Order: sequence, then C-alpha cells, then structure tokens
Amino acid sequence: MRVLGIDPGLRNLGWGVIDVAGARLSHVANGICHSAPGEGEGDLAQRLLSLHAQLTEVLRQWQPDTAAVEHTFVNKDAVATLKLGQARGIALLVPAQFGLTVGEYAPNAVKKTVVGVGHAAKVQVDHMVRLHLPGVKVAGPDAADALAVAICHAHHSQSAGRLQDALRRAAG
Amino acid sequence: MRVLGIDPGLRNLGWGVIDVAGARLSHVANGICHSAPGEGEGDLAQRLLSLHAQLTEVLRQWQPDTAAVEHTFVNKDAVATLKLGQARGIALLVPAQFGLTVGEYAPNAVKKTVVGVGHAAKVQVDHMVRLHLPGVKVAGPDAADALAVAICHAHHSQSAGRLQDALRRAAG
Repeated sequence: MRVLGIDPGLRNLGWGVIDVAGARLSHVANGICHSAPGEGEGDLAQRLLSLHAQLTEVLRQWQPDTAAVEHTFVNKDAVATLKLGQARGIALLVPAQFGLTVGEYAPNAVKKTVVGVGHAAKVQVDHMVRLHLPGVKVAGPDAADALAVAICHAHHSQSAGRLQDALRRAAG
Repeated sequence: MRVLGIDPGLRNLGWGVIDVAGARLSHVANGICHSAPGEGEGDLAQRLLSLHAQLTEVLRQWQPDTAAVEHTFVNKDAVATLKLGQARGIALLVPAQFGLTVGEYAPNAVKKTVVGVGHAAKVQVDHMVRLHLPGVKVAGPDAADALAVAICHAHHSQSAGRLQDALRRAAG
C-alpha cells in the first residue's frame, strides 16, 4: 500500500510518500510545493492554481493508494487561519479528484503515533521520521511533517485492517 | 462582459452571473452549490470535490469573462474560519482553472458599491440587487450576495477601464 501524507500551507505545502508492507515502512519520495506571494488582482487564485497543478503532478507521478492531510490549527489570527484553510482545500481536493479517500489527523495524533507522546517537539518528530524511514533525505520541515502524517495514516489504516480481520474471524 | 460573483461557503456556495454593457447590467443566472455534511473518513474531501464539480459546471455553462469572490471574515472561531477557507480555496481555484482573473472584495466594499454605505443591512443589499437587476429571481441569500459581488466587480472593472482610457488619452 502506498500512502501520501500532506502538511498543507499556502507558501509551502509539504508532501511525503511511503510504501507499507506489513509492519515494514519504506520511503518513496518527499518534497514541497511552493507558491510565493505575488502582486496584483487575482494573485491568491493564481497561487492556489499553482499548488493544485504541483500537487496533481505529485499524485500522477507517485500514484498513492490512500492519502491523509494534517488537521492543523493556526489559532493566532483569522487571516492566517483563512489562508491555511484555502491551501487545505486544495490539499483535500486533489487526492479526492484521483478517487482516494482522504484521512485527517490532528497534529497531536500524528505525534502520538510517530513519537509516542502527543506533545512532542518538532525536532523529535523529525528524528523519529528518519528512524522510521532509514536513509531518507527530507526536503525540509514541511516535508518531514508530511512524512509523519503518512506514517500515522499507515498505522491507523493497518489497525483498522487488523480490527476488520479480527471481526471477520469472530464472525466466521 | 460577463461577470461571475461567488459568495463562498462549505454548505452553501452562492453564485451569480450578470452581463455588463456600458452602464447597463442584466441578470443571466444565479444559484447555490450545496454540499451537505456526511459521515466517515474522507467526508470533507468529498464535499470539496462536489463543490468543485458543481462550480466547474457553472463556469462551463455560463462562460464568464471575469470573476470575483467575497473576502468574508468569520472571526467567531477558528473552526468556522478554517471551513470557510477550504470552500474559498475551491471558489478561487475553479475560475483560475478557466483562465480567469479572480478579484476579491471585502463585504464592506461590496455593500458600499451596491447600497452606497459600507455598513448596510443584508436586507438592503438584497433590495438593491433586485433594483439593479430588474425581474431577477434569486435562489437564496447566498445567491443574492454572489450577485452583489458580481455587481461590485463590474463597477470596479469599469472604473479601472475608464481610468485606463483616460490615461491613454492623456498619453496620446
């Protein structure tokens, strides 16, 4: 199973792809879709269009089977939250356009899965991502967060699968 | 010139199309794209996918030359703002995918253009939209707001056009 994780952002949208075979995870690719702020009327729409095109290319190239997006909260101000929401809209839309189910995980859930505690520091997450995916070269902090989301989604999907297997056995 | 106005929202996304010939405005069409909340993993992505498909159909059918989106602020809480942002991401993306420049107007700018004052009540905006577009049948409050955005964009585009004409004359 190939999993795509996304850490949404308008300026930097991190993505990471991993393969999952049983309990074995392996790194496939990671990167960052950039959209620098420009000027003039229609700039925001152009930035979202660019993110959409870049993320579509990631899906086309790496063909994941499932996807998940971090459910971040920037509570500091409404302007930042609105901006993040717009980028998140694109992050959720593109995998759905490829027919994928898109999971959502709160940052604490991601940290709890990857590090073991919900309030881990960013540097710990980064460290554990490298431990889970030996030899990985990470494109930047947003790509590391995206890989952490992918790892979290892989674990939760496997747990859900094991639960279904157990239920099937109990019923059979 | 054919103008599309959009009042974004996740559950109800209003749209309105008007034609502009000189100072004359005429109503073309208006409506609301709905996406009801469902359940289960991936629901939000499916709702955004549905809004994207509905709004794409509006653009295909009515072929506007330019578009504008209301720059609303829901400051009450971060959850509501994030939701709105996600719908707004789609509202900005779709016209850009059709090659249009997408203007943005704050609610007060829309009210000032349509009613004459920035702090007009919703019922006044609705009344003035009907006055600007005689005989219009409005699909609902979100569609009325979208038509108001289209009227605002038409006026601003014409002012910009007149300014360019004046500059051209001054230079020539």
